[in-house]
Amino acid sequence: MKRFGFLLFLLGLHEISFAQTLKSPNGRFDLQFAINAEGRPTYQLKFDGKDVVKTSGLGLELKKEKADKQETFDNSQHTDASTIDVKADMMYGFQLKDQQTSTFDETWKPVWGEESEIRNHYNELMVRLYQPKNDREMVLRFRLFDDGLGFRYEFPDQKNLTYFTIKEERTQFVLTDDHTAWWIPGDYDTQEYSFTESRLSEIRGKMQDAITPNSSQTPVGKACVQTALMLKTDAGLYINLHEAACLNYATMHLNYTESTKTFESWLTPDGQGDKGWMQTPCVSPWRTIIVGRSGKDILASRMTLNLNEPCKITDTSWIKPTKYIGVWWDMITNRSHWSYTDDFSSIKLGETDYSKAKPHGRHAANTENVKKYIDFAAKHGFDAVLVEGWNQGWEDWFGHEKDFVFDFVTPYPDFDVEGIHKYAASKGVKMIMHHETSASTRNYERHLDKAYQFMVDHGYPAVKSGYVGNIVPHGDHHYSQWTNNHYQYCIEKAADYHIMVNAHEAVRPTGICRTYPNLIGNESARGTEYEAFGGNTVEHTTILPFTRLIGGPMDYTPGIFEMDCSKMQKDNHSKARTTLARQLALYVTMYSPLQMAADIPENYDRFLDAFQFIKDVPVDWQKSVYLEAEPGQVVTIARKDKNSENWYVGSTVNGAGHNTRLSLDFLTPGKKYEAVIYADGKNADWERNPQSYTITKKSVTSKTVLKMKSAPGGGFAIQLKQKN
Amino acid sequence: MKRFGFLLFLLGLHEISFAQTLKSPNGRFDLQFAINAEGRPTYQLKFDGKDVVKTSGLGLELKKEKADKQETFDNSQHTDASTIDVKADMMYGFQLKDQQTSTFDETWKPVWGEESEIRNHYNELMVRLYQPKNDREMVLRFRLFDDGLGFRYEFPDQKNLTYFTIKEERTQFVLTDDHTAWWIPGDYDTQEYSFTESRLSEIRGKMQDAITPNSSQTPVGKACVQTALMLKTDAGLYINLHEAACLNYATMHLNYTESTKTFESWLTPDGQGDKGWMQTPCVSPWRTIIVGRSGKDILASRMTLNLNEPCKITDTSWIKPTKYIGVWWDMITNRSHWSYTDDFSSIKLGETDYSKAKPHGRHAANTENVKKYIDFAAKHGFDAVLVEGWNQGWEDWFGHEKDFVFDFVTPYPDFDVEGIHKYAASKGVKMIMHHETSASTRNYERHLDKAYQFMVDHGYPAVKSGYVGNIVPHGDHHYSQWTNNHYQYCIEKAADYHIMVNAHEAVRPTGICRTYPNLIGNESARGTEYEAFGGNTVEHTTILPFTRLIGGPMDYTPGIFEMDCSKMQKDNHSKARTTLARQLALYVTMYSPLQMAADIPENYDRFLDAFQFIKDVPVDWQKSVYLEAEPGQVVTIARKDKNSENWYVGSTVNGAGHNTRLSLDFLTPGKKYEAVIYADGKNADWERNPQSYTITKKSVTSKTVLKMKSAPGGGFAIQLKQKN
Repeated sequence: MKRFGFLLFLLGLHEISFAQTLKSPNGRFDLQFAINAEGRPTYQLKFDGKDVVKTSGLGLELKKEKADKQETFDNSQHTDASTIDVKADMMYGFQLKDQQTSTFDETWKPVWGEESEIRNHYNELMVRLYQPKNDREMVLRFRLFDDGLGFRYEFPDQKNLTYFTIKEERTQFVLTDDHTAWWIPGDYDTQEYSFTESRLSEIRGKMQDAITPNSSQTPVGKACVQTALMLKTDAGLYINLHEAACLNYATMHLNYTESTKTFESWLTPDGQGDKGWMQTPCVSPWRTIIVGRSGKDILASRMTLNLNEPCKITDTSWIKPTKYIGVWWDMITNRSHWSYTDDFSSIKLGETDYSKAKPHGRHAANTENVKKYIDFAAKHGFDAVLVEGWNQGWEDWFGHEKDFVFDFVTPYPDFDVEGIHKYAASKGVKMIMHHETSASTRNYERHLDKAYQFMVDHGYPAVKSGYVGNIVPHGDHHYSQWTNNHYQYCIEKAADYHIMVNAHEAVRPTGICRTYPNLIGNESARGTEYEAFGGNTVEHTTILPFTRLIGGPMDYTPGIFEMDCSKMQKDNHSKARTTLARQLALYVTMYSPLQMAADIPENYDRFLDAFQFIKDVPVDWQKSVYLEAEPGQVVTIARKDKNSENWYVGSTVNGAGHNTRLSLDFLTPGKKYEAVIYADGKNADWERNPQSYTITKKSVTSKTVLKMKSAPGGGFAIQLKQKN
Repeated sequence: MKRFGFLLFLLGLHEISFAQTLKSPNGRFDLQFAINAEGRPTYQLKFDGKDVVKTSGLGLELKKEKADKQETFDNSQHTDASTIDVKADMMYGFQLKDQQTSTFDETWKPVWGEESEIRNHYNELMVRLYQPKNDREMVLRFRLFDDGLGFRYEFPDQKNLTYFTIKEERTQFVLTDDHTAWWIPGDYDTQEYSFTESRLSEIRGKMQDAITPNSSQTPVGKACVQTALMLKTDAGLYINLHEAACLNYATMHLNYTESTKTFESWLTPDGQGDKGWMQTPCVSPWRTIIVGRSGKDILASRMTLNLNEPCKITDTSWIKPTKYIGVWWDMITNRSHWSYTDDFSSIKLGETDYSKAKPHGRHAANTENVKKYIDFAAKHGFDAVLVEGWNQGWEDWFGHEKDFVFDFVTPYPDFDVEGIHKYAASKGVKMIMHHETSASTRNYERHLDKAYQFMVDHGYPAVKSGYVGNIVPHGDHHYSQWTNNHYQYCIEKAADYHIMVNAHEAVRPTGICRTYPNLIGNESARGTEYEAFGGNTVEHTTILPFTRLIGGPMDYTPGIFEMDCSKMQKDNHSKARTTLARQLALYVTMYSPLQMAADIPENYDRFLDAFQFIKDVPVDWQKSVYLEAEPGQVVTIARKDKNSENWYVGSTVNGAGHNTRLSLDFLTPGKKYEAVIYADGKNADWERNPQSYTITKKSVTSKTVLKMKSAPGGGFAIQLKQKN
């Protein structure tokens, strides 16, 4: 039997029962869908006539009905037609039932974005498959764009498939060679790893070092990575693997097998090890393969957004791109604290009486301090002020998997909610709410309506939510279907209250902000805070646009002007691995409709000329032009303000420094612009001289070419104001 | 080491480092608390100088910090001082730190109950223990009443014990002999088993047969039973083991070891196998041992209520004992359906369009039918009408562990919520809401505020909630701390809306209705519905008062007048194992402030003379007198109406029938009463002639003695109206 299975397998590679091809609108991509001799659906993707993804298997393995609890880590890729249980088999024995091709071409306007109009143009192949042994149907839908492929599984309403549980999705990506990859370890509970650049064959060997400590983490597999995964072939082809529209489904990791150069999907389980509770009709997220001849093509791709549904919010007038400051870096650097007192060994909300507690004197979210931030925001034209640590419970919020950890409506004694509301309103400044949930999702949902109403009542149009620590209910994970469903519940409920959401430690985005543009930000990667926890890698911000940002904007919180954290708190020896000029650049290179100026007002007061760029830079764009884009090396982007004729350029580089020949040919020909150039100083260097910068002004046109020199760990930022 | 451990164990039985005794107020009970040679706290309970519970160990075993997931079924009782991990040890190595005794005597008035005043009288021993090896304290609090003992663990706020996770509570009940027990199998997900009467030594052997199928069940252990557990010694002592005030804690089972005649606590785990997430200061529920010389003493005990906190609801004016009918038995017998249509293979709320669906014609919760019930309720003086199956989703609500299964606010097209509300109000009838959750607890909590507000808006002052099926989140259980916390959340939130709760399939009650008297009912045992599913045992209602009802009232839904279910639906061959007269008796013997007349109006119309008793019987009492009480044989109770001088007597008997010498000496001497006696007919028999009854009237006084004859599976009911 075993030998026979193996024979079938061999035949499977060559004998094809059905095949169908599809071309991208520009003709450069070829998709071939086929059903192999075992009845397994497969696909193959070519670009300019050459393989990008070789013939790769599709399908899912279901949980056996009434099976015992699954072994979560039993994720062998070697399930084949001879070993899989019949009822659990959604991989083998399929036949073609129907197929349709179609073309779609539409231009839509995002509520906010990197450009004001986005073209959604693809050719589609829908294949309806029939599996006689289970009398089941499954649909595969492929959308081939000029920048790559998206495909998903669809499970139609049918007699023999209504409710089912996914044991594992078995989507393969068979690659052509030992590409270079920029990756972080697969993990069910954190995305906050530094990127490793390595050959695919080196992932396994480098995994141990790549898994650095985190407040909640569940690393998975020996060679399993997260998406968006950035790849580059030796021939200079850029490939990005991710997913789009991950809704009511578990987040995908990719597990690598060296012998076959194959990545296979590896979903995030719930606390029982199950990977998806499905009810037909339903669909999987889109699996995306963005492909380009340069890194710029990857950054310019809008495929992830295009594969999401159009906006479901009718009135979007209340969704406003926002630039903000916050009571935050003070605590991140340990200069002050989220908590209020040292009096209590633990907190029981509603029982612990803070009114009699002795303040420890380092609580930053006090009315007086917050008013200073409001003054600073008003003075410098910021839209809003975030305040963390305003509500009771921070004395023991972390590490206990505590159920009732916060109530989201009860301030500390020294935080005058109503007074601050009135003061901010009088200054024309909005407040940004902070809801740290401590990952206690049931507790958050129990308080959500009251918490959102509290925001509406007190002038908070946006919330930064946080999911630090292990998920409660105990045993569940940050990116399971159950928890993903929680994040989405919050987004949709927030929309009912006209609240914008910026969720930290929540699942990495997959373009859902197209459908729910009140999701104005996510963290979901290693952000600026790590610059105070030992530092990010110098090249970190040259990789994020190719990885984390493929799914949507990140609240990276740039703008650190004092890199030496010991200046904040003497025992903090961390140093932000960046020059000051590069911090300015990030407002352009790290696209987000929500941008923070993360440093404390005192530090900005020391560098008001440089701070001017942060004040000037928009947070919404008409157009974006990708000028340089090499992961791990350099990202240089020019963007045109959505509401004016002005352009902004940002460039961030790695530890080697970089020279940029910057042609301004994106400017409107015949127009004159005043350029304000924020560049690294002559001897600037992230390690030895990070605060050296120059500001120069000059008149330029579309014919101007600037020679820019970025220091190691540096970058530059340019404002280009069109003259009348 | 092993031998040394064994030696210590032997010594432990005899060498005691500290001992303290306590007497009950009446002096008949002696409690001895001691710390044995291993430093394990122990207790011993004597009644009238004889052991009830022999020296029994106390303490808990904690989850090791950062331990791997526990094996749920590894519940060996043989953890001893030599094998337990130090940090996990809350059983051994304790010393006395402090002790206090005190006396309490108070009479309080329940909002509703078996009597209008309850005396709470006990002597208390508080023992503060110190465990040097972990530098921890634990308190044991014993309350010795005239009817038995309650004790609990208390975990004070302290440096070395703040957050901890319980692996198992190790409370022992070492019994003196091979008593007779009335028990149901231990199970994490159902309480709906028939009782088995057996010797303790027979539990293990009879377990297999006792575990009958249920919609969700997780039987545990080989000789593990649920509480309240009723025991009787050969010397005629009655002992009841249960718990009181199970709040934010897992429900306890009792696991039996024959060799030592010992029951040990066995808590319900969450989906990860953990049995309690604790934060000091906190307490366990009370473990209760009610003891009496007769079964009547057990039924008369108010210990369970007394061990709960006083009422926390300030204004209780809206809490009203309620007699109701409902659109229910129709569906239970399968004559009609909860669902509306056969059109859909599955339902997605908000997507499935019922407005175009073809009704299958058997949907009972339609406006016309409901109005008939309202008419019937108004005509016969019932307070309220329950309607099940009114809301969308019943086509596939069960068996799929479906998350978004009901929204609790969207009626079927044929159910006119507002019209019914107005009609009922015009007739002076209240509506009772039905919230079947399908055990999807997150989904219920998400909709709870809107669902309760919907009730307030539409004239529903009470809700019957249901938890049929496996708990969602997947893997959790019906009686875990997590899920118990959910039920309590619903009760407390309902109180905010002035809503009374009657939760079915929820955790068995533990007297919480004292603190939250809006918890007016629970099912939490095998109810009348099983009479349509094959039948309850004939003696079932003679056991429930000693078991399920110890914790609080049950919505048993008596009043079935047509025992032959095939008269309802021809294919239903189930027969209610009862006579008609016994059905009347249950309104007295099965105490509840919420009583249903469960049969359909057409069946009551056939027996209006007997129905008169159901119309007359109160649902709230001044006083209760227990006349006969033998589990498995007979329960006869007299109760005095809370609002008049009238008395009511009920008696339910087993399959052997029973003769009762009924002395009416509980009546006020010197007063005359008209007795209306509803008795089994001469040849009545639950199996062959269940509907034979007699109604006789006679004048009686406190000196009257009635000779009552109950048929096999029969009983009687008497109304005693005081004459002016």
